[in-house]
Amino acid sequence: MLVPVPTTISHAQETPQPQITQSQPGAERTEVETFTLENGLTIVVLPDKRIPFVTHMLWYKVGSADEPKGKSGIAHFFEHLMFKGTTNHKAGEFSQTVSAAGGSENAFTSTDYTAYYQIVPPQHLKTMMEFEADRMRNLVLSDEVVDTERSVILEERRMRVDNNPSAVLGEEVSATLFQNHPYRIPIIGWMQEIEQLNREDAIAFYNRYYEPNNATLVVAGDVDPQEVLKLAEETYGKIAKGPEIGPRLRPSEPQQDTRRTVTMRDDRITTPSFSTSWIVPAALKAENGEAEALDLLAEILGGGTLSRLQKKLVVEDQTASSAGASYDGLNLDYGTFSVNATPRGEESVEAMEKQVQAEVERIIESGPTQEELEAAKTRFTRGMVFARDSQIGMANTMGLIYSIGGNADDFFGWTDRVKKITAAQVQAVARKYLDYDRSVTAYLLPKPAEEKAQN
Amino acid sequence: MLVPVPTTISHAQETPQPQITQSQPGAERTEVETFTLENGLTIVVLPDKRIPFVTHMLWYKVGSADEPKGKSGIAHFFEHLMFKGTTNHKAGEFSQTVSAAGGSENAFTSTDYTAYYQIVPPQHLKTMMEFEADRMRNLVLSDEVVDTERSVILEERRMRVDNNPSAVLGEEVSATLFQNHPYRIPIIGWMQEIEQLNREDAIAFYNRYYEPNNATLVVAGDVDPQEVLKLAEETYGKIAKGPEIGPRLRPSEPQQDTRRTVTMRDDRITTPSFSTSWIVPAALKAENGEAEALDLLAEILGGGTLSRLQKKLVVEDQTASSAGASYDGLNLDYGTFSVNATPRGEESVEAMEKQVQAEVERIIESGPTQEELEAAKTRFTRGMVFARDSQIGMANTMGLIYSIGGNADDFFGWTDRVKKITAAQVQAVARKYLDYDRSVTAYLLPKPAEEKAQN
Repeated sequence: MLVPVPTTISHAQETPQPQITQSQPGAERTEVETFTLENGLTIVVLPDKRIPFVTHMLWYKVGSADEPKGKSGIAHFFEHLMFKGTTNHKAGEFSQTVSAAGGSENAFTSTDYTAYYQIVPPQHLKTMMEFEADRMRNLVLSDEVVDTERSVILEERRMRVDNNPSAVLGEEVSATLFQNHPYRIPIIGWMQEIEQLNREDAIAFYNRYYEPNNATLVVAGDVDPQEVLKLAEETYGKIAKGPEIGPRLRPSEPQQDTRRTVTMRDDRITTPSFSTSWIVPAALKAENGEAEALDLLAEILGGGTLSRLQKKLVVEDQTASSAGASYDGLNLDYGTFSVNATPRGEESVEAMEKQVQAEVERIIESGPTQEELEAAKTRFTRGMVFARDSQIGMANTMGLIYSIGGNADDFFGWTDRVKKITAAQVQAVARKYLDYDRSVTAYLLPKPAEEKAQN
Repeated sequence: MLVPVPTTISHAQETPQPQITQSQPGAERTEVETFTLENGLTIVVLPDKRIPFVTHMLWYKVGSADEPKGKSGIAHFFEHLMFKGTTNHKAGEFSQTVSAAGGSENAFTSTDYTAYYQIVPPQHLKTMMEFEADRMRNLVLSDEVVDTERSVILEERRMRVDNNPSAVLGEEVSATLFQNHPYRIPIIGWMQEIEQLNREDAIAFYNRYYEPNNATLVVAGDVDPQEVLKLAEETYGKIAKGPEIGPRLRPSEPQQDTRRTVTMRDDRITTPSFSTSWIVPAALKAENGEAEALDLLAEILGGGTLSRLQKKLVVEDQTASSAGASYDGLNLDYGTFSVNATPRGEESVEAMEKQVQAEVERIIESGPTQEELEAAKTRFTRGMVFARDSQIGMANTMGLIYSIGGNADDFFGWTDRVKKITAAQVQAVARKYLDYDRSVTAYLLPKPAEEKAQN
């Protein structure tokens, strides 16, 4: 399955990055307490007594889409630099402390945020806060540190992107789908720009964005909210408020009037596949229930074996080995909606694409049935319950929502809002947004036989 | 014929903008004198006694590719503002003076430069210099002036781009062809960004770029170079040198590894057409004769009725009503190479595209014949002679070359460099750059019959 939209880059630390799925924001309301320190730091506490661990996450409201022109990759680069030494601690000391406590840690960068977290037994929470608060302002950014890390990141790019045809295609699809907004630029950065990033870029980025008033602290676990507040005041509270950062205004998209394709042929590809993407509203910016309707549209078209695409192409016709649809809306400015399929056996990718398009056109023409709509709501709600079943998953989604301008109501209210959506609303978003004359289709194809023979 | 590459926007004044063609830089050496004033203004004088007019052009080394992030269109917007009032002259006074002298004037903005010119009888040269020097630093930029002109420009965009399917397609092709470099952004600006441009943006742009040390004055006509220098010192020489602007570093292109298409369907289109474009080196940045070879490759493939595409598709097979190839290299950072064709009668655009691709592959496989190469050199050289035959054409190309970092040697030496190119060099650039797996093909198509009926 192609993922042509910008996605999160996880820092190569010990634990796998928690999966953020669209189905999480609807968890039912549990206790949640929020505070704001005098220096502007927002604190969100999610009490959770089921496991003897606490998740401590610090989210900065800065991601690759905030980078200066020509400095792509600096947000992710900076995430790496945060694991270097500070004026108070040598490089590696924080990580060793997490390990010694039996904990784990990670960090990740996306288009709209950069987050750092540790999962440790509760008695170590204050130590985590001390370390995390320390590196918010006290990093030692020498040329040597920056130069060494640049090599690491260039290697990371080679491995993750340049050696991976699907990732290369994903980058070029984003650069085609978004014509002006910085979601078009890869989170990891373009190779030729990463190569030029230097200490001055890092310092400018640090001083502008790594401030308590640009961050959200999420603490989930067996903790008392007032105690969390007290610990946060004793640690993060010591940091002075930074300069005002102002609203996050990025270049916006023009109206698009063309149908585009992006084709990658590579001899490492054995099975052809395709995906078609559209720019749609972001979840928290959409109006009139459009985001909730897009969630259900994705579920009805391509969510699981009961969805239209899977039932028709995978089960009945057996022309596809996989097929799906997804709405990625948890971004600050825009969402994307995609449909995809991988043909089975001798089926051509062109024929497959026509079959998917026929299903898209069918839902535009007639909308979903009432039965389908209710089934999709049930599946979607169940997905939320599962998502809520993990401490890190809950903390992650909450941090993400705060980082893109939302709050706990957006998190807890999603299920109810989804339940109110009508079949007509689902049909309306399909008709409004899934216009093939404003789409980008990506093809990941094997090399033709004769070319392959030459290699 | 589609023109998917960024092109010059001419200001809507009296005279048509002179055509800049690739064939101009090779004019044979004539007298040319250059000077630099203490304030950094470069002066190029091209004596020309054939007509009783002098062409006075002032070129600023700033264009749309220099615009700040999210401020697309400010360079062109500013070109409009330069026709407003200054502290010394009311709006319209300059234009009236030109008209009263029996002259004409115009201005244009491109990705890399903005230029203003007047063509007047020689005795009015000093007056032109006085006015032009005055508006370099003394514009009155009120909210009212800026707000009024914004409406004019929005209307200009609607007329020139949004109401023109070919122009809309051209914008989206550029936004697809260039994945990172600002040549991807339309010179006129994206509608939603023009709407936001304001007085502060205009002032910041003016103060940064409209300085004598960022400009080239070209004077062509029946003038004495020393007299031009004296007049320039008396007018432009009074302006203080501006702050250093630094090198023009724009975000560069990543390696591209996909074949892309951009399709525009519109019911105003009756004849389908297509063009395929590649990013190639800029004329003055190319090495080892590659730019000269690209000029000849365009000539051999698609320059006139003797070119391969026209001979085969238009004359012999009669499948195309037109076919061509072009190299646009007179830009600061990158050039583009394009092939295009319009099918004739019932021929499909897909079949047409295959025929053009076959010709591209044939020249990659076997290169041009010696006879073809010599004929192309003759045609190309003749083109240069014709281009040199116009005072404004010569002044224009010289100003352009200076604005992208070149000099008189680049102008006069081109013919000789083209003459030295071998068939192997032409084949080599075709093989190196015309890779369909790194191309963008644009289709301008009629709406399918059933959709048309609905409109």
